[in-house]
Amino acid sequence: MSTPAQPITFLKGHGTENDFVIIPDPEGRLELSAAEVARLCDRRAGIGADGLLRIVRSAAHPEARAMADAAEWFMDYRNSDGSVAEMCGNGVRVFAHCLERMALAEPGELAVATRAGVRRVTLGEDGAITVGMGRAVLPGPGLTVTVDGRSLSARHVDMGNPHAVAFVDSLDEAGRLLEAPGVAPAEAVPNGTNVEFVVDRGPRHVALRVHERGSGETRSCGTGACAVMVAAARRDGLDPAADGETVTYTVDVPGGSLIITERADGEVEMTGPAVVVAEGILDPSLLEGA
Amino acid sequence: MSTPAQPITFLKGHGTENDFVIIPDPEGRLELSAAEVARLCDRRAGIGADGLLRIVRSAAHPEARAMADAAEWFMDYRNSDGSVAEMCGNGVRVFAHCLERMALAEPGELAVATRAGVRRVTLGEDGAITVGMGRAVLPGPGLTVTVDGRSLSARHVDMGNPHAVAFVDSLDEAGRLLEAPGVAPAEAVPNGTNVEFVVDRGPRHVALRVHERGSGETRSCGTGACAVMVAAARRDGLDPAADGETVTYTVDVPGGSLIITERADGEVEMTGPAVVVAEGILDPSLLEGA
Repeated sequence: MSTPAQPITFLKGHGTENDFVIIPDPEGRLELSAAEVARLCDRRAGIGADGLLRIVRSAAHPEARAMADAAEWFMDYRNSDGSVAEMCGNGVRVFAHCLERMALAEPGELAVATRAGVRRVTLGEDGAITVGMGRAVLPGPGLTVTVDGRSLSARHVDMGNPHAVAFVDSLDEAGRLLEAPGVAPAEAVPNGTNVEFVVDRGPRHVALRVHERGSGETRSCGTGACAVMVAAARRDGLDPAADGETVTYTVDVPGGSLIITERADGEVEMTGPAVVVAEGILDPSLLEGA
Repeated sequence: MSTPAQPITFLKGHGTENDFVIIPDPEGRLELSAAEVARLCDRRAGIGADGLLRIVRSAAHPEARAMADAAEWFMDYRNSDGSVAEMCGNGVRVFAHCLERMALAEPGELAVATRAGVRRVTLGEDGAITVGMGRAVLPGPGLTVTVDGRSLSARHVDMGNPHAVAFVDSLDEAGRLLEAPGVAPAEAVPNGTNVEFVVDRGPRHVALRVHERGSGETRSCGTGACAVMVAAARRDGLDPAADGETVTYTVDVPGGSLIITERADGEVEMTGPAVVVAEGILDPSLLEGA
């Protein structure tokens, strides 16, 4: 990184306990290397987070310049290992919340540029934030998930990334989830898949545990909650595109609760909280020699 | 907590990747409940740390008032679950480094009050910090450590807390350390024990992995590094109390490297780094409703 003259400010926050280091960099002056992002996200040697969100004006970032007319702000999202990532539903809520907190956005409608395109966001007066998550695709043939030597039937739902959704009687059936569950047939999910285990909590109310491809079990997965809602709706005989009626489910994740809505036009929307727990200044030593 | 009028400042830092949230509170105005400490130390919903260090003037804390003449500052150390803890060698280094950073201490000798008594600290000009860790006691009969179905002989070393030190050919022999290793005879360590696995790296140079009682595998354990140094010295036929000569070993831990010295008077001293990665202000919401 070319060290800037002024200190680097940061925030730490989370959406249903999917947590982020957020770095405001409106003019796009900080080019963080993968090693620097990994160091920031290291939970013991750095600040610690599941990922990093850099707040950059779309016009100031080469990957977002074409979206600048539609969305003033670009979410430069990076995984905790420093690799570039396209989108993160929990991350968009936290990103939008930080914009509002910094008086860079007002309550109401907002467009956020991401590597997966422009996302519509609604900043609610009550603090809840709604994000457009796109449409679900259900490839048809079911999947089989194997965990702790037991096989479970699962629905295959694609939300831009793949999900295998298995309904179970108890979330304990997922065991300790220390390893990725097996998923068959392998050719249906050639790049691997996220796996959700789901129980019913009440009418249009479910709870999940999730094993994220490449990350292990996590406290929350936005696309996973959306995939689970769509799988539950289809299981319950509900299909907004066919019925012409919006359907809403509450989806509890280990780190909190999300409201997922599927509209008649197929768009899936996720509503949930975003929290900032601290803000401050990075010590320059953290980015030296990374 | 009785909410103070002014914002609560914090630092985050680590000693060989044993990490802490540090809260300067010179006049002892912040009484943090166990739930509040746990929330601060939560790695996803809070700042995240192995523990919390509150910097309080000894004269301002009921548990430290009697030490105020000997040590101006009291390290109020709490575990990540909010429980009160007595001492932490890595924590003392970070605590002393923060005092120096805040111009509350100068390079050279310093006394720090802890719940285990006053500790002597030396703030080196090169940034390395030395902490007096007390004397080792070797109860005599050996222990047997069982991990992944294999049994290993171990030395029993007490540094104020118990340690079982097993020399191995490869640190892989400890396996994944997802569970606490078995230790026998159980009556020798009635409250459980920390377990160290140790390999040689060179003359007076060893490396360890540690399973901490109640915490699982960690990146560093100060008393564990001291126990390992003493066990290695005795194995190598060295006993400073008998020989009248100071002995020094380098002890690599997963999160860095420590220099451990045993003096002829039996005192064990640990020298290592302390790092601050960020400082800032807590969002008031983090401590509401905890």
